[in-house]
Amino acid sequence: MSEQQKIDMQTVWQQDKDHYIHPWTDFSTFKETGSMVLADSDNVHVKDGDGREYLDGIGGLWCVNIGYAREEMAEAIADQIRQIPYYSSFGHHTTVPAAKLAAKLAELAPGNLNHVFYGCGGSVANDTAVRIIHFYFNQLGQKTKKKIISRIDGYHGSTYMAMSITGVKFDHIGFDIDEQLVHHISCPNPYRRPEGQSLEDFCDEKVQELEDKILELGADNVAAFFAEPIMGAGGVIVQPDGYHKKILAVCRKYGVLYVSDEVVTAFGRLGHMFASEDEFGIVPDIITCAKGLTSGYLPLGATILSSDIYDVISKPQADGAIFTHGYTYSGHPVSCAAGVKNIEIMERENLCGHVQEMGAYFEQQLKTLSDLQIVGDVRGRKFMMCIENVANKDTKELISPEAKVGNRIADHCQARGLIVRPLAHMNVLSPPLTLTREHVDFMVATLRESIEVTTAELKAEGYL
Amino acid sequence: MSEQQKIDMQTVWQQDKDHYIHPWTDFSTFKETGSMVLADSDNVHVKDGDGREYLDGIGGLWCVNIGYAREEMAEAIADQIRQIPYYSSFGHHTTVPAAKLAAKLAELAPGNLNHVFYGCGGSVANDTAVRIIHFYFNQLGQKTKKKIISRIDGYHGSTYMAMSITGVKFDHIGFDIDEQLVHHISCPNPYRRPEGQSLEDFCDEKVQELEDKILELGADNVAAFFAEPIMGAGGVIVQPDGYHKKILAVCRKYGVLYVSDEVVTAFGRLGHMFASEDEFGIVPDIITCAKGLTSGYLPLGATILSSDIYDVISKPQADGAIFTHGYTYSGHPVSCAAGVKNIEIMERENLCGHVQEMGAYFEQQLKTLSDLQIVGDVRGRKFMMCIENVANKDTKELISPEAKVGNRIADHCQARGLIVRPLAHMNVLSPPLTLTREHVDFMVATLRESIEVTTAELKAEGYL
Repeated sequence: MSEQQKIDMQTVWQQDKDHYIHPWTDFSTFKETGSMVLADSDNVHVKDGDGREYLDGIGGLWCVNIGYAREEMAEAIADQIRQIPYYSSFGHHTTVPAAKLAAKLAELAPGNLNHVFYGCGGSVANDTAVRIIHFYFNQLGQKTKKKIISRIDGYHGSTYMAMSITGVKFDHIGFDIDEQLVHHISCPNPYRRPEGQSLEDFCDEKVQELEDKILELGADNVAAFFAEPIMGAGGVIVQPDGYHKKILAVCRKYGVLYVSDEVVTAFGRLGHMFASEDEFGIVPDIITCAKGLTSGYLPLGATILSSDIYDVISKPQADGAIFTHGYTYSGHPVSCAAGVKNIEIMERENLCGHVQEMGAYFEQQLKTLSDLQIVGDVRGRKFMMCIENVANKDTKELISPEAKVGNRIADHCQARGLIVRPLAHMNVLSPPLTLTREHVDFMVATLRESIEVTTAELKAEGYL
Repeated sequence: MSEQQKIDMQTVWQQDKDHYIHPWTDFSTFKETGSMVLADSDNVHVKDGDGREYLDGIGGLWCVNIGYAREEMAEAIADQIRQIPYYSSFGHHTTVPAAKLAAKLAELAPGNLNHVFYGCGGSVANDTAVRIIHFYFNQLGQKTKKKIISRIDGYHGSTYMAMSITGVKFDHIGFDIDEQLVHHISCPNPYRRPEGQSLEDFCDEKVQELEDKILELGADNVAAFFAEPIMGAGGVIVQPDGYHKKILAVCRKYGVLYVSDEVVTAFGRLGHMFASEDEFGIVPDIITCAKGLTSGYLPLGATILSSDIYDVISKPQADGAIFTHGYTYSGHPVSCAAGVKNIEIMERENLCGHVQEMGAYFEQQLKTLSDLQIVGDVRGRKFMMCIENVANKDTKELISPEAKVGNRIADHCQARGLIVRPLAHMNVLSPPLTLTREHVDFMVATLRESIEVTTAELKAEGYL
């Protein structure tokens, strides 16, 4: 690296620290340390501003599914810009990529989920779902049916409404949320179930809790239930077998719409284009997605509705009003062109097939870390995994938050060329789907070493 | 156009109609007519799927400021994808374009508005502003200070919260909004002020209304006032001289934050990078922007905060909590690279200077349409203009909504190669900023002819 490049990177670091308010910032350290600058990338690797290379074990943020810096993506995107870089979809206008991608998503989505509304990410996809659901019940004349039920530790985004649906209590600290419209039921985390309770009983208890909540609020007041197929930012929680089907049955019983938040799970992470039906056997009423839709190359999200819902919301309102919802960047042609090309690459390279095989190997290899002293649980499926660290594997007692065990392990991994995500006392793994066996082996070996070093440190400091 | 191209376009049209739920759709006609496909573009022109060319009088949707299909933009964006197409800004990570653009925005924004939070568009920029304002007052211990005041006919976006702040009553029909948190005062539309009232008295009355509303709600409960420098989607309403300064003084008096929604006005539309100070003499506490930030080439929005606000929100919370707000695509490197290049082009070509001159000519030439029978008002500034059509210029009575006068004029313009936006009984103009004198003359002549033809039709049909 030249002297000039070093100076440039120092300038970037300073500009970032002085002017960029990061999402999810820990200001107790940010103003001292500033940020790590990511400046280059290739397939599963990224490079920092000093040219150091890391295997990106988190795929950006659960999203770079096809891997980094694909020339084909750069070209498809540049071509669309050369044709038409933007047009509004208001007032009966459209563009080729927006229409093509909508048809493709309708083809890939389960059941009769055939109608696509676009936004720019997962938060907006969920926010939009709420707005459309309200509109739907207003159209049906069921004007009290508006409340949303979601789950503690469910993550659904960060607009005012999306964060209200989010049930991660830590994320609510210091901010305001809507407490009239949204209600939470408890988290179906099998690892934390009462000792001695069978998985089946635990599952039935959680399903009963939904029914009780609907009855408590009144079925006439409950519009929808929001859930991720596997809970993501809440700690990669895989619900007991059959949970989703039983929950869907409760929703159907009370005319409550089921919204499956596939922002993380769609587009290959679990080895399917959509996980709701292929992995969990349910056809929801609405699927929201983002991230893997473009592999994160450009901002794009979608709210995919069943024909039943579309038929109701697309009935013209009596008084000449129109469907007054949407964004300047709904159906952005360049973002949609990225989505079309991304799915084309995934299909051509059979990335879902690769995940079925390599994801299974990843899952199996990661589970070998369970023999380590502080590894309480290794969970998840395929390329959506989590390691939960504990002080005591029998009691599942946590290590003191002050020890920042998740951060320590992430730091030790980073020093060894691997990025993993700290999430409180856990570490999350969501690598690009192009991962090879060699990459898996490197990740697991690096994690083992980093957890061992961390364990030794924690003992030396009296945390264990 | 080849047979194959025709078949392809027919397929796209069908896919669009079958699967794409457009924003702001009038379903009373959509299922019959489907959409116009926009397939190609160059500078101020776009082409439909049949190869017909139109001068785009609306710049996409108030956004394609530098004009369409710039090769330089395609290359800058492709280059960024080749380097690193995405990285998360969570957990103290950043990318070069995100940091550079933040520094550039801090340089361009007025006063000490030096801190940038990114989203993907205007709706999210405003939604984020609300969340940050709540966090700010929570940090200060003023936990009741949460209510937002905005104006009837103000437009602030379409998330649940952004649409609640929006005051266009038509846009609320059929949907739900938050009615606890947001309160609206009346629209300062000089054209519709009581007959005989002076502009100054009208202005003072509107300012007094804000003060009355704050006192009614209690200053301890009011957090912020949201306003566009010129109201956009509400009908391009230019407030009386001095309005913004007087409003800001009221806000300061009661510790109410002033949020200037510059989603439409920023990046040259009025001949300045930001209009708040340069056009209207105020330094707000927060500016939200989007659209012109990338000239619409890629989705990006920003919420720019004063140092005073940043100093409060960046103080670490006592209990180890962090600033838990933000999006996967906050600071998206490719969107930010588009923003950096867009601003570079604007500065190099002195587009603001061009707007000062050519926008003034546009404004002046459009005003010559005031002699037409149904043109009640031609208003706006520079490249943000509106024509209000009426049945009677003295009484300002409207033509029956059934006549769809705005749509008719837009259709006649389109048949003559010009796209203008119908907005109820009005037509809105917001062309690319690269417009030349010849383009202006073509637009004005085409509008004159189209309004004349429409007038004759309306007479023949008994509407006039």
